[in-house]
Amino acid sequence: MRILSSAASIAALADPIRRFLPEAQFEFLTPADIADRGGDFEVALLSRDIAGTSASDVLSESLVEFYAAMRASQTLRWVQLYSAGADRAVYRELYHQGVTITTAAGTTATEVAHSAIAGMLALARRFPLLMQAQRDRRWASLHREGLPQGLAGSHALVVGFGPIGKAICGLLEAFGVKVSCARRTVGAPDGADFEFLTYDGINAVVPRMDWIFIACPLTPLTRKLVGKQVLGNMKPSAAIINVARGGVIDQDALIERLLEGRLGGAFLDVFEVEPLPADSPLWSMPNVMVTPHSASHTLENAGRVRELFVQNLGRFMLSLPMENEIRLS
Amino acid sequence: MRILSSAASIAALADPIRRFLPEAQFEFLTPADIADRGGDFEVALLSRDIAGTSASDVLSESLVEFYAAMRASQTLRWVQLYSAGADRAVYRELYHQGVTITTAAGTTATEVAHSAIAGMLALARRFPLLMQAQRDRRWASLHREGLPQGLAGSHALVVGFGPIGKAICGLLEAFGVKVSCARRTVGAPDGADFEFLTYDGINAVVPRMDWIFIACPLTPLTRKLVGKQVLGNMKPSAAIINVARGGVIDQDALIERLLEGRLGGAFLDVFEVEPLPADSPLWSMPNVMVTPHSASHTLENAGRVRELFVQNLGRFMLSLPMENEIRLS
Repeated sequence: MRILSSAASIAALADPIRRFLPEAQFEFLTPADIADRGGDFEVALLSRDIAGTSASDVLSESLVEFYAAMRASQTLRWVQLYSAGADRAVYRELYHQGVTITTAAGTTATEVAHSAIAGMLALARRFPLLMQAQRDRRWASLHREGLPQGLAGSHALVVGFGPIGKAICGLLEAFGVKVSCARRTVGAPDGADFEFLTYDGINAVVPRMDWIFIACPLTPLTRKLVGKQVLGNMKPSAAIINVARGGVIDQDALIERLLEGRLGGAFLDVFEVEPLPADSPLWSMPNVMVTPHSASHTLENAGRVRELFVQNLGRFMLSLPMENEIRLS
Repeated sequence: MRILSSAASIAALADPIRRFLPEAQFEFLTPADIADRGGDFEVALLSRDIAGTSASDVLSESLVEFYAAMRASQTLRWVQLYSAGADRAVYRELYHQGVTITTAAGTTATEVAHSAIAGMLALARRFPLLMQAQRDRRWASLHREGLPQGLAGSHALVVGFGPIGKAICGLLEAFGVKVSCARRTVGAPDGADFEFLTYDGINAVVPRMDWIFIACPLTPLTRKLVGKQVLGNMKPSAAIINVARGGVIDQDALIERLLEGRLGGAFLDVFEVEPLPADSPLWSMPNVMVTPHSASHTLENAGRVRELFVQNLGRFMLSLPMENEIRLS
């Protein structure tokens, strides 16, 4: 069995693979090996270090090279991704050629949910204003600047109920925030005691919401799901938090609404074009927090993706279904 | 029964008092009334609007006037405060003259705990760095800038187990953070399943901690509790969050340690001198967040203090023990 990955991932995988699959024989290849001496492989582990500082619309050289190697292999049967999302064209292309794609959904859910809650709390506690005051060395009493509403008793709509959406819902309840959840599937899952709706019900509930969290995959169904109409129905005091994909929100409509002062704020980790262009008005809006698609980034993540890969590798060799196999349209 | 408060509080109290205590007769006075025509009173409600934008070391005119009226009254028996803390000299003075002091502990615990968690999350997700990058319109990938540790599995010491400390402990557990709690009393309270220690045990546990939350009252026992020694024992990656009183930390020692780069960060809502002087180095340190003693501030708070006051007024008239009576040394 031949496995394509980065030199760093190959070095880190040797031990866990030997322990977990002591009988199996593997050959490890990097894209540089392929370029040097050609060769096919059956499995590709696209680890985070290969993406490097790639953004949705600007790919690192190593990522371009990795995509080219995957596309060139005649024998590729499975790709393990480091990301929870799989919305790049190359994955769809490979998938339709019969390659199995597994995401790393779940390995980053905790951190992404923490980042989303961090964004909500920062907006709730007026950190954008207070951090500006800090830069100005100014003691900005909120009794003068404007008191925020308490979080407890406010109402949030979470769009998406995968591992990230689920984790967000749980944390919101700990803060005393009422939760409604919009997802593709009809009905409430077992054990969840809050309101569930499908995506087409969002417009009806949005006028009641203080917070909207975007935590769904980007699919034809969710592209620009939060557009002019949903934004137009939001409370002027409500805020939106996006840790999913920029394409789920109509970004121009969001900017327009923020410019008109008819939205309380936004915490945006993802954008229609990434990196967010330097001339975007979002960078300098007073109640907007911009983070660089970093909601999932932690020291521990690469290790968790390797663990998932090794588990999946065992299942792949036994032709068993793997964790996080996805279907792409 | 004569009650001193602000004109705004008096207006807002009329209805709830009439509903809750329909038989009783009250006369309401403001400090201006006292100045005009003299007069004593038995009860004082020091509501938040009287403090206005007062800080620990700079008092608003209305607060100075209110203190003077309380000190001058020959018949004062009870003061209800808007704050959870009661560390000003005037309260000690009245207390030792036999006046009962009740704080508003509990009415702001939820918001203060939310603010403390907001501070931790902001530091954990590197918001100070990312907000600086936002001002520079720079896409600051954390893979280049330095990856943070995930929160789950980190360990926090919460100093204080009043309503605020308790709420912080509960929220930390929701984030998968291990909790130890230092308090005055020996032993673990019923139902709490984490480690408890007394204040003198802090030095021994501090080297294991990633986060230290200060949520205790300022008393002779807690003044400069976090000094050179505790700070010196902290992990260089650990961060400190203070939503209690500035005096619990030796601020000069904290600044020194931050300047030496031997502390991961700090979220400080309170300071030894307030407002924090414009020349304090804390304003411009890269991993320090300064907020203006605003952790408890919300639109809803004044109403909650009035509710507590009305409940306590009923008990006061029946000579029953009131909520949040405190002892001062």
